[in-house]
Amino acid sequence: MVKVGVVGGTGYTGVELLRLLAGHPEVELVVITSRSEAGMRVADMFPNLRGFLDIAFTAPDTELLGSCDLVFFATPNGIAMTMVPDLLAAGVRVIDLAADFRLRQADEWEQWYGMPHACPDYLQRAVYGLPEVNRDAISVASLVANPGCYPTAVQLGFLPLIEEGLVDLNSLIADAKSGVSGAGRKAATAMLLSEAGENFKAYAVPGHRHLPEIRQGLERVSGHPVGLTFVPHLTPMIRGIHATLYARLLDTERDLQALFEARFGDEYFVDILPWESHPETRSVRGANHCRIALHRPQQGEIVVVLSVIDNLVKGAAGQAVQNMNIMFGFAEQTGLQGIALLP
Amino acid sequence: MVKVGVVGGTGYTGVELLRLLAGHPEVELVVITSRSEAGMRVADMFPNLRGFLDIAFTAPDTELLGSCDLVFFATPNGIAMTMVPDLLAAGVRVIDLAADFRLRQADEWEQWYGMPHACPDYLQRAVYGLPEVNRDAISVASLVANPGCYPTAVQLGFLPLIEEGLVDLNSLIADAKSGVSGAGRKAATAMLLSEAGENFKAYAVPGHRHLPEIRQGLERVSGHPVGLTFVPHLTPMIRGIHATLYARLLDTERDLQALFEARFGDEYFVDILPWESHPETRSVRGANHCRIALHRPQQGEIVVVLSVIDNLVKGAAGQAVQNMNIMFGFAEQTGLQGIALLP
Amino acid sequence: MVKVGVVGGTGYTGVELLRLLAGHPEVELVVITSRSEAGMRVADMFPNLRGFLDIAFTAPDTELLGSCDLVFFATPNGIAMTMVPDLLAAGVRVIDLAADFRLRQADEWEQWYGMPHACPDYLQRAVYGLPEVNRDAISVASLVANPGCYPTAVQLGFLPLIEEGLVDLNSLIADAKSGVSGAGRKAATAMLLSEAGENFKAYAVPGHRHLPEIRQGLERVSGHPVGLTFVPHLTPMIRGIHATLYARLLDTERDLQALFEARFGDEYFVDILPWESHPETRSVRGANHCRIALHRPQQGEIVVVLSVIDNLVKGAAGQAVQNMNIMFGFAEQTGLQGIALLP
Amino acid sequence: MVKVGVVGGTGYTGVELLRLLAGHPEVELVVITSRSEAGMRVADMFPNLRGFLDIAFTAPDTELLGSCDLVFFATPNGIAMTMVPDLLAAGVRVIDLAADFRLRQADEWEQWYGMPHACPDYLQRAVYGLPEVNRDAISVASLVANPGCYPTAVQLGFLPLIEEGLVDLNSLIADAKSGVSGAGRKAATAMLLSEAGENFKAYAVPGHRHLPEIRQGLERVSGHPVGLTFVPHLTPMIRGIHATLYARLLDTERDLQALFEARFGDEYFVDILPWESHPETRSVRGANHCRIALHRPQQGEIVVVLSVIDNLVKGAAGQAVQNMNIMFGFAEQTGLQGIALLP
Repeated sequence: MVKVGVVGGTGYTGVELLRLLAGHPEVELVVITSRSEAGMRVADMFPNLRGFLDIAFTAPDTELLGSCDLVFFATPNGIAMTMVPDLLAAGVRVIDLAADFRLRQADEWEQWYGMPHACPDYLQRAVYGLPEVNRDAISVASLVANPGCYPTAVQLGFLPLIEEGLVDLNSLIADAKSGVSGAGRKAATAMLLSEAGENFKAYAVPGHRHLPEIRQGLERVSGHPVGLTFVPHLTPMIRGIHATLYARLLDTERDLQALFEARFGDEYFVDILPWESHPETRSVRGANHCRIALHRPQQGEIVVVLSVIDNLVKGAAGQAVQNMNIMFGFAEQTGLQGIALLP
Repeated sequence: MVKVGVVGGTGYTGVELLRLLAGHPEVELVVITSRSEAGMRVADMFPNLRGFLDIAFTAPDTELLGSCDLVFFATPNGIAMTMVPDLLAAGVRVIDLAADFRLRQADEWEQWYGMPHACPDYLQRAVYGLPEVNRDAISVASLVANPGCYPTAVQLGFLPLIEEGLVDLNSLIADAKSGVSGAGRKAATAMLLSEAGENFKAYAVPGHRHLPEIRQGLERVSGHPVGLTFVPHLTPMIRGIHATLYARLLDTERDLQALFEARFGDEYFVDILPWESHPETRSVRGANHCRIALHRPQQGEIVVVLSVIDNLVKGAAGQAVQNMNIMFGFAEQTGLQGIALLP
Repeated sequence: MVKVGVVGGTGYTGVELLRLLAGHPEVELVVITSRSEAGMRVADMFPNLRGFLDIAFTAPDTELLGSCDLVFFATPNGIAMTMVPDLLAAGVRVIDLAADFRLRQADEWEQWYGMPHACPDYLQRAVYGLPEVNRDAISVASLVANPGCYPTAVQLGFLPLIEEGLVDLNSLIADAKSGVSGAGRKAATAMLLSEAGENFKAYAVPGHRHLPEIRQGLERVSGHPVGLTFVPHLTPMIRGIHATLYARLLDTERDLQALFEARFGDEYFVDILPWESHPETRSVRGANHCRIALHRPQQGEIVVVLSVIDNLVKGAAGQAVQNMNIMFGFAEQTGLQGIALLP
Repeated sequence: MVKVGVVGGTGYTGVELLRLLAGHPEVELVVITSRSEAGMRVADMFPNLRGFLDIAFTAPDTELLGSCDLVFFATPNGIAMTMVPDLLAAGVRVIDLAADFRLRQADEWEQWYGMPHACPDYLQRAVYGLPEVNRDAISVASLVANPGCYPTAVQLGFLPLIEEGLVDLNSLIADAKSGVSGAGRKAATAMLLSEAGENFKAYAVPGHRHLPEIRQGLERVSGHPVGLTFVPHLTPMIRGIHATLYARLLDTERDLQALFEARFGDEYFVDILPWESHPETRSVRGANHCRIALHRPQQGEIVVVLSVIDNLVKGAAGQAVQNMNIMFGFAEQTGLQGIALLP
C-alpha cells in the first residue's frame, strides 16, 4: 500500500482524484489538506463520496505530508512550487496536477503564468508526466508534472506524425473544444449554467497557457521549432475534450492508420478507432482513455486527427493515477478500469 | 462464475447492464442476443465498451440461453413473457428488467400494458425484485421482476412511513422527475435534444404504467388500499430520478429521521441524509444508491420525502445486478461499488 | 413616449427588461444606473443588445431619475426601499422587480428577508403587480411591487379554484421547478454549469421567501388562512418555471375547464390549454404568457394544475412591462408580442 | 401585403419561418401545406404559436399556391425541384430553404445529394440568396436558393479576405460547430438528448454537402479554385453555429479589422466585433445577425476568423425573410428586429 496525501482537493480535479483513489486497491489515503475547508468532511462537499470516503479536510501539515510516500497537488497554480522542495527533501515523491512544473524554462513559465517561480531549479528536474512519451523517466521520477488537459489530447494526436517527420511543422492547427469543468469549481460568472449553457464560444485565442506546453512537447519530439495555432473553445457540457488537429502532410503515401496503430498498439489507454471514424467525448466520460481517429478529407494533403479524452481523467486525475502506478510499479491500469458512463 | 445471457441489450438499460456485468468479477457473459442487430459488435454500438467487451450480438438461440445459469431480459415490454416459461423449464433463472412480471394481477397488467399476457400463471410466481423489501424471496427466486425506475425511488421513500402506519394512505402524492434516458434509446421526436433540452414538462398525468406498480407495492406493505396521485415529469438531463413525496402525518410526534435511519441502517444502497438535506441526482449518477432526505416544512403535518436514484442503475440495471448477487449468494455490493461521477 | 429609468440592470432580470424596453414603441430609455458598472456600455456586458441599445451604465443620479416618468428597479432586494420614497415624492412612478414591497406586513418581510425595512409605511401603499388580479389598482398606482416568479405561476394556477371556494385550503401543495436563471447572474458555485447541469434537486424546502408571498396572495383572495406546502426545485435549464399544483376538491361536480376558461378568457397573457394537456416551459420561452392545463388523475378528488411561465418574462421583466402598459394606458400587449423561441 | 404560401413547415426551419412570418407586418400567410399533417392546427404541433397563428396545415394545393406572390419551401431536399417550375410558370416567386437550387452544376448536385435533379435547367436561373453578396440579383430574382447554415457562417467570415486576395486559397480550413437543431426535427437516435447531450463529436469529416456549396461561393468571388478543409461538429445545444476559420495571410501588413469593418459597414445583419473579441452563439440566438471577430495569434501569418449565427435564423428562416424583404422592396430588417434571447 502506498501512503498517499492530497494537497488541495476541493476542485474538480481534486474530487475526481479522490474518486479514483478511493477505489484504488493499492492506496492508503492518509491526509487531504485544505486551508480553507479544514474540518469539513470531504463527503459533505462532494456528495458522491458519501459512504466511500470517510475523511475530513485538514489544515496543511508538513509533518504528516512528509510521512507519505506520495503527495498529489490538486491546487491552483503557484502552490505546489512553494512546498515541493521540502517534500522532496523529506523523501516524498510528488505529482503536481497544476502547472507549476510543466514548462522547462523559468522565464517562459513566468511570462505565461504571471508570477515569479518559487523554485526554478526544479523545472529541469521535473518529469513531464505523459506516460505514452516518458514512461521510463516517470517510473523513477521523484517529481512529476502532470500534463494539462488540452496538451494531453493534442500531443497524443500529433505525436506519431511528428515523430515520423510526416507533417509540415510550421502550420499545425489545434482547434480544441472543452467542457466547462476544465475551468474549475471556482465561482465565475462566465461558467454559470445561465451563461455557458446553450452557448458556444472560443476563448483565449490570442494566447492560452497550454500553447507553450504543447509546443514544448512537440518540439522535444521533433527537435525543431513548431508553429502551432491553438484555439480553445468552451462547450456547453461538463466533461470532455475534443481536439480537431490539422496538419499538412509532407508524404501522402504513408499509411497513417497503420502508423498510429503501431505507435499506440501497446498503450492500454490510447485507442485508435477505424479509419474515418468520429470519436465522441462521451465514449471516455469518466474513463482514462484517449480515443483517436484519422481522416484525409477529399484525399488531400491535410490530415485531420480527432482526439478525445475526459479532461478530468486522462486530462488530469486519471493520468495522475496512471503516473502513480508507473512510479510505484503497479500495473498501469490499476484502479483505472472504470468504463465510461454512456449515456 | 455465473454463466450469464442477456436478451436485448441494445437500449440504455442494456448498455448499462453490460457496463456493470463487464466489470463484475463473478460473471461470465456467454451471449447477448438481438434479432435486429445480430452480427454487430456490441462495442460498435456502444463505444464506451470498446476494449472492455469483445462480443457481438447474436440471434436469439434457445439452446445457448438454456445453457446459462441466469438470463437477463433487457427487452421492450412483452418479449420476456414469451420466452420465460421455456427458460425456467430448462432450469435457467431469469431477471426481467422490463415490466412483464411486475404486476400480480393479469387483468390489471393487460389493462395498463394494452396486450394480453402470454403467461399469466407466472405473475404470481415472479418475485418483485426490490431487495430492501423482498430480499429473502429474491434469494431463492427463479424469476425476478426487476422494479421500474419511478417505483424504486417512490417506494423506498414511502416505505418506512407506511410500514409504521404513520401517514394518511388516501392522500399520498408522488411528484417525480426523470431524466430522458428513462424513455429509452428508440428514436422519438419528443426525446430529441432540440425538443427535450431546455424544456420541462409533466407527462402521462392521467395515468402512467408505474402507478399501479407503486400502488401494489405500497398496498402489500400497508395491507390497505392506497390513494396515490402520481405525476411524472421530463427533465432536461440524461440520468436521474428525483421523487418528491408528500404525505399527511397521522402522528406528528414520531422521530422520522430516526425511523428512516433504523429502517435502512443495514441497507448498503440506501443512504439517509441528515434532516432537511437536499439530495442531488448527480450524487448517484452511475451508482446504485438511493439517497433520501426528510422535511416537515413549517413543522406542519405534511412530511416531504426527497428520494434520488440513477434511473439506469438503482432504477434498472444496477438493481438487476443487486438481485443477481442476492440470487447467487454474492456480497450484495459485488460489481456495484463504482462511485457516482461528479461533476 | 414614457421617459423611463432603470436602476440596476446588470442581472438577468435587468437584461431581459432592457431587451423588452428596447423594442417597446412607447418607451424612451433615459438612463440605466449601476454603481459598480458605471461607464461600461450595456452592450459590452450583454452582447445580444449590440446594435439595439447604444447606452452606457451611469452612476445613480437622483436628479436624472427624478426627471423620469417611470423608474424600474432591477436591483437586489433592499435597494429599492432606500430610494423609492424620494422618487415618489418627486412624482416618479416606480415598478420594483425585487421583493422590497411584495409583502404587506413589515414584520413578516423583515423575518423572511433578514433585514429591517427602510420604509415600512410604503408596504401598504404598494400595489401588488399581478394584473390578472389587481389590474385596476395597478392602473392608478404610483408604486408597483412586481411579483416573484414562483408566485406568479402558482397564484395564476390556484386562483380560480380559490376564488370559487372549490378546494380545501389546508392542504395545498405547490411543487415548483425553475430554470437556473432564477438564481440570478451573480457568481455562485452552485449555479455553475458543472454543478447545476445534468442535475436535479430541491432546495429551500424548510422555507423559501416566495412562500409568504404566495400565501398572502391566496389569503387575500380567499379571505381565510391558507395551508400551503411549497417545494421549489432547481432544473438544469436556463429559463422556465413549471408549477405542479395539487389541491383537494370540495366539489367534484364542477366543470373546472370551463371555470378556468371563463376566468381567464379575457386575459391576453393567460392561455388555458385543453383538458389533460401538458404545457411545456419552452412554449413560453421569451414570451409573457402563462399556459395552464388541468387534470383530475383517475377522476379522483385531487385536481392537478400545471402552470408554466418564463421566469424572466411573465415571472419578472415581462410582467413589469405589462404593469407599465397598464399604468400608462397602453394596450396591455404593447412591446410584449414576441413569440416564444422554439426550439 | 405579400400573399405568402409555405410548403412544408413541420420542421425546425419551418416553425422558425412561421414565427418570423407571424410577426411580419407586410405578410399575409395564405397557406401552409403538409401532406402528412394536413388538418392539424399548426399551433398544436408548435405550442409557441398558440394565439399567434390560427391556421391548419393543408394538403398541397397547386392552385392555392399558384395564387400566392411568394412561396417558401421548407421541405426536405428534393421536394422543391418537383414543384418550382410550375409555380414559376404561374408567376409565383419562390424561396427554397432546402438545397435543391444551391449548386449551379447539376452533376455536382447529383453527386452530393444522391438523386437525379428534377429540373437541372433551373440551377443556373436560381439566385444564391446570400444578400451580402448577391443583393441586386436577389431583388429581381424569381427563384432564390436560400444558403445553408454552415455556408452562411463560413462565407461571411472568409469573404473580405478572399475578395481582397489576402490569403492562400489552397489551405483554407473551416472548423465549424453546430447545435443539433441543424439536424432537423425528424426522429433520429443520434439526435436524442441522451445521445447528443453532454457529448461532442465531429461528423461527416470525409465530406459534407455544405462543402461544395461553400467552395462554389468562395470560388465565384475569387475566380480561382479553392482548397478547403471543412470539418463540422455536433455541439450539445439547440441553436447556434460557430465557425472557426483559418487562413494563411499572403500579406501580413494589411489592417484586417478595418477591412472587415469597411466591407460590412452597411450591412445591417453583419456585426464586426472589436479586434480579438470572442463572439458567442447566444448573442445571436433567435436573431438574424452574424457576429464576426478577428485574431492573429502570436502575430503570425495565420488569421483566425470567428463567425457566429443562429443556424435557424441567419442560417435559414431569417435569411429567407431577409431575401423576401429584398425581393419585395421592404426595408431589409422588416420583421427581423427581434433581439437575441440572453440568457
